[in-house]
This record gives sequence, structure tokens and C-alpha cells, in this order.
Amino acid sequence: MSLVEPTVGAPERSRVRVRLVVAYDGGAFRGFAANAGVPTVGGALADALGRVLGRSVELTCAGRTDAGVHAWGQVVTFDAPEGFDAARLQRSVNGMCGPDVVVRSVAVTEPGFDARFSARSRRYRYVVLNRPVPDPFLARTSWWVPEPLDLAGLQLACDPFLGEHDFSAFCRRPKRAAPEEPASLVRRVLGAGWHDGGDGILRFEIEASAFCHQMVRSIVGTLVAVGRRSMRAGDVAGVIRSRDRARAGQLAPPHGLCLWSVAYDGWCS
Amino acid sequence: MSLVEPTVGAPERSRVRVRLVVAYDGGAFRGFAANAGVPTVGGALADALGRVLGRSVELTCAGRTDAGVHAWGQVVTFDAPEGFDAARLQRSVNGMCGPDVVVRSVAVTEPGFDARFSARSRRYRYVVLNRPVPDPFLARTSWWVPEPLDLAGLQLACDPFLGEHDFSAFCRRPKRAAPEEPASLVRRVLGAGWHDGGDGILRFEIEASAFCHQMVRSIVGTLVAVGRRSMRAGDVAGVIRSRDRARAGQLAPPHGLCLWSVAYDGWCS
Repeated sequence: MSLVEPTVGAPERSRVRVRLVVAYDGGAFRGFAANAGVPTVGGALADALGRVLGRSVELTCAGRTDAGVHAWGQVVTFDAPEGFDAARLQRSVNGMCGPDVVVRSVAVTEPGFDARFSARSRRYRYVVLNRPVPDPFLARTSWWVPEPLDLAGLQLACDPFLGEHDFSAFCRRPKRAAPEEPASLVRRVLGAGWHDGGDGILRFEIEASAFCHQMVRSIVGTLVAVGRRSMRAGDVAGVIRSRDRARAGQLAPPHGLCLWSVAYDGWCS
Repeated sequence: MSLVEPTVGAPERSRVRVRLVVAYDGGAFRGFAANAGVPTVGGALADALGRVLGRSVELTCAGRTDAGVHAWGQVVTFDAPEGFDAARLQRSVNGMCGPDVVVRSVAVTEPGFDARFSARSRRYRYVVLNRPVPDPFLARTSWWVPEPLDLAGLQLACDPFLGEHDFSAFCRRPKRAAPEEPASLVRRVLGAGWHDGGDGILRFEIEASAFCHQMVRSIVGTLVAVGRRSMRAGDVAGVIRSRDRARAGQLAPPHGLCLWSVAYDGWCS
């Protein structure tokens, strides 16, 4: 299975920085971050890569998606021995992890490229199925909201999120701040809006420098509250300013959310 | 839960013929036909309808789909007490069976309407994902064929299926002919062709008066053999004429197949 010769007793080979674009159906996973004893996307990928490369690998990802959240353009970096066979690595990992987790592409990048810290922005998509009757084929990737939503209100309520804000009202504060986490919950939203795909398929896209924990789902829950007319679009700016989590809408379910793409200098997943 | 008053000791109410359009993700079911001890779509529906109506119901369906096969426009008929609440029945059944099985619509039809015997034709869709890399979001509803297919060959190989043929080479003969089964495997194909949805999504549609067991999957397997250049389009007519099942292509997997719609006089699901 290993693509490289064992290095026991031999001098350490040169390593290269490898960048994967990974898609996954998050339904069967407890999120991306490896966590002993529970199935995670990062755990499954690291296991497969370790078997293919014959050594353990440490993964960095662009966005640590939560349990049940999907990805189309997740970016993952790690180091591999120089001269590894990229096409064979992709086939082998997809054979082990597919079809729930799929490596869409493999590339060798410059040594300093880091999936997380080199990212300029992340773009998420959230799909709401706004029809009176559910759909078995969209159930795993959308939030079914049967009551007719006010589309103009949904769109109008996006504007207050644009720009730099303290998103305390829309984030779950980590129980214990991780040392590498920025203490602040200030984030810059670069774009946010709804696309009406017809037939009740409403697609929300939001791009930001970075997101805090549960931020997109909390924003979507708030927007849908406006769409349901249980909150006014004009009140959203006040909710943001309040920094009070109790004033935001309910958390939208994870299975409607997908990490769509990640932008870097000169490249986008 | 029951929508009608109990009829114990009371005269039998008038009954009406009810027509459902049902969509389902067949992945978790052993086909449509109720079968004690295994999960089937018909079993789940009959259970839910029985609870809602307070009496057992006998279902007739337009197409008895196999294990793992999906439906978007399956048609189901049964008798219900006159005056039942159709909207409430739909909500209740969808609450019990959704989101894997969803009643898309409920209507009262003329008494003689029968989901199976009134049907003029059935239309099935089969999706092939023809890309080098699989897709986690299409994995449950398409057959992943990584090697590039000859699209012209795929299309050309459809023509010999048009019209009336004995489809013995493309059907699994029932072990014991059911009394209501027509003895013949002659069927009339009204249309068959591929639609290239772009990005490697190839959608096959076939319409026929009726289908025999495994007929669409066997036809798709044969067409894909032509697409892979392991069979010639020009040989397909001979395979049909041979009535020899060993000469057809491999059986395409069930999860790419969907009963799309059923046509009746003046109405289509």
C-alpha cells in the first residue's frame, strides 16, 4: 500500500508541502477535526494518507467544519516525502474514504503555503428548501422550511452583516479559548446574499475573512426568522450591535451548510 | 391519530379511490412491494396510511421498484372512507415516513382508476456520473463510471431499443411466474436517449408501455458497455434479437435508477 520506500535507518527524505481540495458529505462525521473514538473527516483522511505514505501525517484545514456540515472545496495541507505519486495517492485515498470523502485534487505547493493561515477568505453556502412538501433527494443537504418565506426580507436582512463587526451575538464562545484562537470575535464579511434557484430552492452564500464557531448557522437562523416575519429586517443591525447571543435567531441545522470554497493569493479552491 | 370515526357497529361508509404521487430515496428500502420483516416503501406507506385512516389499506403502485431504486413520480392508489381530510393525511404520512418517503400530492380520482392497470406508460431516469473523481453528493443517486465514455456511441446504441421487442435478453425472469404477470417479455419502448447535463452528469431517460424486471438496469449496463467500447453500438440489435441474457451488458447498480413519471389518459405524475 505504501507509495514510498521505508526510511528506517536511512536519512530523512526531503519533504514537500501538499495541498488537497476535499469534498465531503458530513452527515456521517462528527466534524472535520480529528477526535479519538469518533468518526471525523480529518481522522479518516489522516488514516488513509498515513497508510498510503507509510508514515503518519499532520493535517491543516482551511475551515474546521462542525458535525454534519458538508464541504465542496475544503483545503487541506500536509507534508509528504518528495517524489510521491500524486495521482496514485488520490486514487488510493478515494478508494479508502470515498464516496463520502473525496479528494478532488492534489498539488505540490510552495513550502510556506498553509491551508489555514494562508487563506484570504472562506465562502459558505447554506440551502433552504422552502416548499410545503419535503424532498427525499434534498433532505441531506438542505433545511426544509415549509412556511412561505418573505424573500425580500431575507435579502434585505443580509446587508447589516456586511463589513467588520463583533459577531458575539452569532457565535458560540469556545468553553476554553484555544491558545491559537484569536481572542476577538470580530470578523469581516465580504459578501452575503440569497440566490433563488427556483422551485423553492433558496441558496445563501456568505464570504468572510474567517468565521467564528457556528457563525453561519446562527446568521442563517436569524435571516430565516426575518423570512418567517418573526423578526424585522430593520432589527438585525441592533442584534449585531447587542453582542447578545439570546437576541439572534435559532441555530440553523448543520446539514444545510457547506464550506464551498477558500480563496488564497492567486488561487481559489 | 385516526382522521375518521371508528365504524364498529356502524354501517360501512362509502369509499373513494385515492391517488398519491410519492417520491422516495430507495437506498434504505428493499424495494416497493411490502414484504414482512424487511423495510419496504410500500410497507412503510401502508403502515402510515393505516394509522392515519384507522383501518388497513391495500396499495397498488404503478411500478414495483427494486431494492435501492428511487422514485420521483411513483403513483399509488388505495381506497379510503369518503370525506377523509386529504391535506391532513399528507402531512401525517410525511411526518411518519419523511424525508426518505414523501407524499407529493393526494387526490380523489374516479373509482375505476388503478395506479398499475390504468397506466399508459412509465418513464425512468438513470444517472451516470462520468468523471475521473467521484462526488459525495451524487453518490447515492448515480453510477460513478470514471473512464471516459463515448457519448456518440451511447446515443447511437439507444435506437435499437425503440419499438416493440421481446426483452428476454434484458430481463430477469421471475422464478415463479406470478399469476397476474403477462407471460410474455414483449414490451414497447416509446423513447430512449441520453441528456448530457454537463460536468460529466449523463442522464438516460427511457419510456415504455411497461418494463420487465431489471430491464432498465440491464439496458443501461449494455449502453455503458458500448460507451466503454467493450461492445459496438451495431451489435445491440443482435443482442436484443438473441433473447440471450448472457449477451447483454452487466446490470447497472440500482442507486442510479429513478422511476421518474407515469402517464395516464389525460394526466401524468
